[in-house]
Order: sequence, then structure tokens, then C-alpha cells
Amino acid sequence: MKIEITEVGSRDGLQNEPVPVPTETKIELIHRAVDAGARRFEVTSFVSPRAVPQMADAEAVLAGLDVPEDVVLQALVPNLRGAERAAKTRAQEWVCFLSVTESHSQANSNCSVDEAIARLEPVVELARTEGRKPVAALAASFGCPFEGITPLDQVLRVARGLHDLGFEEMKLGDTIGTAIPSQVSVTVSSLQKALPQVGLVLHLHDTRGLSLANVMAGLSLGITRYESSLGGIGGCPFAPGATGNVATEDLVHFLHAEGHETGFDLGKLVEHGRWLSEQLGRELPGRLLKAPPIGATQPLDGIERAVG
Amino acid sequence: MKIEITEVGSRDGLQNEPVPVPTETKIELIHRAVDAGARRFEVTSFVSPRAVPQMADAEAVLAGLDVPEDVVLQALVPNLRGAERAAKTRAQEWVCFLSVTESHSQANSNCSVDEAIARLEPVVELARTEGRKPVAALAASFGCPFEGITPLDQVLRVARGLHDLGFEEMKLGDTIGTAIPSQVSVTVSSLQKALPQVGLVLHLHDTRGLSLANVMAGLSLGITRYESSLGGIGGCPFAPGATGNVATEDLVHFLHAEGHETGFDLGKLVEHGRWLSEQLGRELPGRLLKAPPIGATQPLDGIERAVG
Repeated sequence: MKIEITEVGSRDGLQNEPVPVPTETKIELIHRAVDAGARRFEVTSFVSPRAVPQMADAEAVLAGLDVPEDVVLQALVPNLRGAERAAKTRAQEWVCFLSVTESHSQANSNCSVDEAIARLEPVVELARTEGRKPVAALAASFGCPFEGITPLDQVLRVARGLHDLGFEEMKLGDTIGTAIPSQVSVTVSSLQKALPQVGLVLHLHDTRGLSLANVMAGLSLGITRYESSLGGIGGCPFAPGATGNVATEDLVHFLHAEGHETGFDLGKLVEHGRWLSEQLGRELPGRLLKAPPIGATQPLDGIERAVG
Repeated sequence: MKIEITEVGSRDGLQNEPVPVPTETKIELIHRAVDAGARRFEVTSFVSPRAVPQMADAEAVLAGLDVPEDVVLQALVPNLRGAERAAKTRAQEWVCFLSVTESHSQANSNCSVDEAIARLEPVVELARTEGRKPVAALAASFGCPFEGITPLDQVLRVARGLHDLGFEEMKLGDTIGTAIPSQVSVTVSSLQKALPQVGLVLHLHDTRGLSLANVMAGLSLGITRYESSLGGIGGCPFAPGATGNVATEDLVHFLHAEGHETGFDLGKLVEHGRWLSEQLGRELPGRLLKAPPIGATQPLDGIERAVG
């Protein structure tokens, strides 16, 4: 199948990075990902700079990009104030973020889930006026740090509410990396049945090592759109329970090995992932950054002896 | 399904550990795994102490174990000399190790694949005389560091040769972690068809993040036996391309979440995995050692704000 990958490294990947990442580094990250084949980005977030200082340069990052015409730039737009900022930039798609569970919604947005949906109405209207595409991002679609496993009914209710507002594309976020393949299957197939006209995107984290198993579940239901971050960055790197996005290079390796097309060059991804590792000054979770090439090793007497 | 997991931490996990691990630590590792529910172990290896110094205490580890009667102890027995050593111990199952590819066989055992099969004949005979069960371990069943992807025909040819020698149980080793789900499916289903009477065990590494996706492929074909190591230890921890076994705690978390039974206690596994991490003095690859409990976090104002 032809698979479309959205690179979210400069947004979800860097959002919780404790040290400020220079605007030029964010821009270079995107330029390098374009070089490796990325054509869709969640570039940045128009959240309050007070809440998320790392995203304070949202306008500057978007203004500094020099990318081909076929590259689609998304930006997170959590509310009308964010939308008004985004309207002055080149972000073609506005990602409207809300939480599926009440506690996560309160913690993230200081409002109930229903209030969060209602608050998106003027954002969608402004998007229409400005000729931008609104995309919904449903955080905690599979699990919530406060409430545990997210009930399917809740996901369906939120998705229906968003669809009534006019959203035709929805990202299902496995925000804390608790999704398992059977849950992905049930959630995706239920949404496909309930809202067949809605395009679904899977946003998976690798907290429990299941991101690619979950991609497998998505693929088997015909899901062709996934999100990932170069190097697998994301989450708070120094906190216990650090939880990165699935790494773009690991996702691309898997998809290519299984015969799918992504438009990415794996060698370049690995090269740029190593660059990112140097920029952030630490080893990154992406497996392909460390995995040796297959079949390229020379037999070294003794070295491989008795390895199981 | 009821799933049986063989804990291989004290053998494949520690084999390439550069610093000598005390015999008592290996024994405690096994005792702790028993406490967490493990009932089958690949304890150690009767290889030449010159080739693998870390396994030089094979006899002492086996002699020092104090485990319940239903615990099955395996030991690696690469040749007749190893078998003669194993015969003097309590190892009930002898794991006869050989490589499926010619280059890996030469590098590991200084002989061709056919010679390796032939060399196992007296080992199997001795096992029969001594009342031990011979189990075959097919290294490089999916990929080879020298030759690349392992052709299926080669795996089938070696498996048939081993079956002719009397092996009724075979471990398929993804030695360098290159297996992908579709390859696991094709390999397993071909072997099930060619040798329906042979019991298959999957031994997977997580080098490219696909171990659990590969388990998923195995489960869908009815494979109920897997190998793993506490903490995901294994491979050379300081070499580029370090490649651990799938972590027992990650495997158990996945299997339980999908409704399978393993007999393991995940909480104890995580506790003992953290102990092992302290013993080895480094962070281990096992994801569950770092993942926060689901649904147990208290909402902290601001902390979770705008996390995607």
C-alpha cells in the first residue's frame, strides 16, 4: 500500500524538551526530513507560550521554512486565539486538539470534553473563512494517565461531535502509549463503521514497545496514514515513563520491509536521525539509528562465535 | 491462549556481558524469575570457557539452583564435549545450537551447516542414553549478519535434517533481529506444514522494534511458546547495533493485555527487572521498567497541559 507519514518531531517530539531548541534547529529538522522524503508535517503549536515555552517560536519556524510546494504544513491550534495566530501564517492545516477523557481534558484544557468540542466551533469557522483545513486530534483515544483504558463509547461520542462540527479528518492519539493491537482494531473498525466518510490517522507512541504491532493492526484495516517523529523523540526525556513517538526511521523500515511505499529514503532518515541525536545531546530511542545493516558485516573470526 | 515463556536472561542475556557476572547473581536472577512465575529456563551454556568466558561457571550455576520441581532447566550444548559436561548436571533439556546459514555456521562453529547437523548425532544419542530431551536451536533463521535475509528453503532443509536426527522441538532464532511479521508467518506456516509433528518456539530480538509485532504473527498461527530475557538484556551492550532479546516484562504485558495467560506476575517481573538493572549498572531496554502505571497518575495542574 501507499502509506502517508506525518512527521511530528518538531511539534510533539520537541514540545517537552526541557532545554530550549533554537528556531534554526527546528527549521533544519524539517528541511532534513523533507530531504529524506517527508511531505507532511505537524510543524508547531499555537499554544500559549507561557504553557509551552518550547513552542513560543511557532510563527518564526513557519516563516523560516523553505520547502517544496507539495509539502503540507500543519500547526496545532488548540483554541480561537491560536487560530487567529495561525491565520497569519502559512499553515495550511489546523490541528484542533482535544482530549477524549474528562480528566485529561481538564488537565490539558481546563474544560470538559463537551466544552472543548464547543470551543472548536469558531475555530472551524475561521478555518473555513481563511481557506485552511481543520483536522481533529483526539488525545487519550486509547488510554488516559488518570482514568486508565479509554472506553470505546467515549471515543465514538467525541468523534461524532467533531464530525457534526465539520471535521473530516481525525488523528487518534495513543498519548500515553497504552494501545494494544486488538484495541486499535476495535477502535478503528468501529469508527470506520460509524463515520465511514472520516479519514483516520494513527498517532502512536512506543512506551510499551507496541507501536509497530499497533501499526500492523491499523494496516490490516486499511489505515494508510500514520504519524511519527524522527529519532522517536517525544515525551519528557528525563522523566520516569519517558514516552516517545514511534520513530520515523523504525516505521519506514518496517513499512518498506513489508512491501509498502512511503516515499522516504531510509538511509537519509538514519543520517538525519543521528544529526538530531547530536543536536539534542543524547541517544534517541529510534532503533534503526543503532541497528547494523543487514548482511553487510564481514565474518570476523571469533567475534560472532557462539552467539545465540 | 496459554503461553509458555522460556527465560533466557542468564544465558543469551548475559553471554556477551563484558564484565564477569558473579555466579550468585546468575542464580539469583533465576530464583527471582521463578518468583515472578517463570517455569522454564535456558540457564547456561556448555561452550568452551575460552570462547565464552561468561559461561565458564555453567556447572556451578546449575548446581546452585534451588527451584521447584516443575521448573524445567535447559542448557546449551553445542557439541559432544558440551553434552558430556551437561550429562553430569541436572539440565533436563539440552539445547543443540546450530546456524542455518553457511557463513554464520563457519563463524560460530568453524564448520558447514551439514557438518553441524552431523556433529549433533552423537549428542542426541547421549541425550537419549542420559534421559534428557534434545531441543534444536536454529540461529539465523530469519537473517544473517553476513548473508542478509535467510532463504526459507535453507530453514526448511536444516529443520528436516534435524527432524531426521530425532529432534521434535525447534527454536527459531531471530539472532540479529531482522525478522518481520510476514516472514515469521511464512516461515512458521511452512514449517508447520512440512513438519507438523515438530513443536516450534520463537526466539525474538528487538533490534528493529519488531519483536512484539513478530509475536503477534506467531500467535495468529497458534505458536504458544516464546523466549525472552528479563530486562531485554542480550547482545553486546556497548557495541553499535546492540541487540537485546525481547524483554520478558514487555512480552508478558503484551500477552496479558491481549487476554493470554502466562503464569507470570508482571509487577514482580518489573521489580526483578529493576534489580537486574542495578546489578548490571545500566538502564536496560525493557520498556515496562520505565512505563508508568496506566490510570494511576493524579492530575497535576499544568504538568500534562497541551501534551499531544
